[in-house]
Amino acid sequence: MKIAIAGFGSLGKAVEKAASLSKETELVGIFTKRPPQAVKAAYKTPVFSLYEAPKFRNDIDVMINCMGSASELPVITPYLAGFFNQADSFDSHKEIAAHIKRADYYAKKAGKLTLVGAGWDPGLFSLIRLLLCAAVPDGRECTFWGRGVSSGHSNAIKQLDGVADAVQYTVPLEDKIELAEKGELFDCSASELHRRICYVVPEPGADCGLIEEEIRNMPGYFSGYDVEIHFTDYESFLCEHSSRKHAGRIVGKGESSFADFSLKMDSNPDFTAGILISFASAVFSMNRKGKIGAISVFDIPMGELLGGDTEKLFPML
Amino acid sequence: MKIAIAGFGSLGKAVEKAASLSKETELVGIFTKRPPQAVKAAYKTPVFSLYEAPKFRNDIDVMINCMGSASELPVITPYLAGFFNQADSFDSHKEIAAHIKRADYYAKKAGKLTLVGAGWDPGLFSLIRLLLCAAVPDGRECTFWGRGVSSGHSNAIKQLDGVADAVQYTVPLEDKIELAEKGELFDCSASELHRRICYVVPEPGADCGLIEEEIRNMPGYFSGYDVEIHFTDYESFLCEHSSRKHAGRIVGKGESSFADFSLKMDSNPDFTAGILISFASAVFSMNRKGKIGAISVFDIPMGELLGGDTEKLFPML
Repeated sequence: MKIAIAGFGSLGKAVEKAASLSKETELVGIFTKRPPQAVKAAYKTPVFSLYEAPKFRNDIDVMINCMGSASELPVITPYLAGFFNQADSFDSHKEIAAHIKRADYYAKKAGKLTLVGAGWDPGLFSLIRLLLCAAVPDGRECTFWGRGVSSGHSNAIKQLDGVADAVQYTVPLEDKIELAEKGELFDCSASELHRRICYVVPEPGADCGLIEEEIRNMPGYFSGYDVEIHFTDYESFLCEHSSRKHAGRIVGKGESSFADFSLKMDSNPDFTAGILISFASAVFSMNRKGKIGAISVFDIPMGELLGGDTEKLFPML
Repeated sequence: MKIAIAGFGSLGKAVEKAASLSKETELVGIFTKRPPQAVKAAYKTPVFSLYEAPKFRNDIDVMINCMGSASELPVITPYLAGFFNQADSFDSHKEIAAHIKRADYYAKKAGKLTLVGAGWDPGLFSLIRLLLCAAVPDGRECTFWGRGVSSGHSNAIKQLDGVADAVQYTVPLEDKIELAEKGELFDCSASELHRRICYVVPEPGADCGLIEEEIRNMPGYFSGYDVEIHFTDYESFLCEHSSRKHAGRIVGKGESSFADFSLKMDSNPDFTAGILISFASAVFSMNRKGKIGAISVFDIPMGELLGGDTEKLFPML
């Protein structure tokens, strides 16, 4: 499978590493919004301007779109959908339906397939929530994230004017986990189950008060949450906040059953990159079978994640 | 959705209960190999001979086949595939590929869709194993069943001559779970991870030595396992072995990630029945879209489990 990467932040870098180490993928290039000569690829992948991407439309089986969900993907995913098969890890849960709709038109016109929200949540966790909901129709599912670094939320802060760097820890509330385990949690939103703790390195002369206000009011990311914001200098930031560990848990309680899925990752970007590449192979395989448009993970027969290879699949049944 | 049940053991009874209590299913009938008048349905569902089933071919959207995996399903699934859309919970993992092949010919000829292995394992657990394998290609997954009652193994014993009733507890080995959690378990077969404990009520005059030998040598079920067999009288059996609790766990360990899925069920048949009905709705929906033949759970886009209803699906992403 010939893949390319759009966007070269922490996720793009992790995809480059995973694709370079895999025998099943060939990495055609990295496409960036920055001046290509300013970007250094660790595995010597050639770097091009994002706006040159259409020239490569016949050379790439799947474009893995690693841009940020807050402001980039809503524009770049539909743009690339018109030229390539594509997988992104758009992570603003409430906006996914609209995001699919935007990309669908361009993908269909080009005869290509775009998959959105193909990370661990949305993505892997969405599938497990749906499975639990199907298996236990009378049950209640609850998802907890963390404690760990959310790339989407960290990136959303980094996009703000006056921010040099930032990291955001998602922290689940212990008392809510206890209620979920007893099946006593009803229709809670994510903001009632988590706190968000941010460490921000301001640029020299930046207005920290304004940054704080912009973070607290960011819709879909921080608005409505219990948010804790700390400003720090770059040196302590590098020293204390370089870990990219993350975790997640889904608790499902029915009248007569209890399901519990938990995941721990040493590196959120590395784990997400692995999932994106698996989903990209499903996109490639499904497009070859004639599927076009924009889809979510719910539209994928799971066997496609391993290329529909029955020899590999049947021992897993 | 108009469903029917083939086979009225503990699983068939659980499906009758679940379908009778659901607003989304209409239960057309129960089809049995026994004389229909000998079968009493708890929710007053009409009972017919299995061999009358073809007469109802235009009245049933999906046949839920609850016969036993050991000797009935290998014959009855292909037979019913020729008349109905169908879901079964065939549970002999190593035989699934052959089972699909047998049913595929008849299903395709009839323009119907048969799904095999749609219980919790195979079924729900197969999907989670595949997801973990796709997310962590360098990882190792291990599945543990129990401690709990395996319906498939209990039924396999009950089919033997001279057995009045039987129950089989699957017991995972604690030291193996510890190794799996550390990622130190390599290519173990199920028989190296579990013990099987059987309680058997012999019929008067039965040859217990012969029964014991037949159990120990049963391929795909007991052969190769550490098996413990106890003979008991009917009174103590009813008193001590009426629980149908079961449990399962999948542990996945990659170089830099750890996933842990665990499930506890108060009633194995009730839980399996719920899953079968969800998968049956996917079968019905996919056949209406033109899909025919025999498939496994890996061929189903997960959204079909909730009828492809986007309003219901998007909040789960």
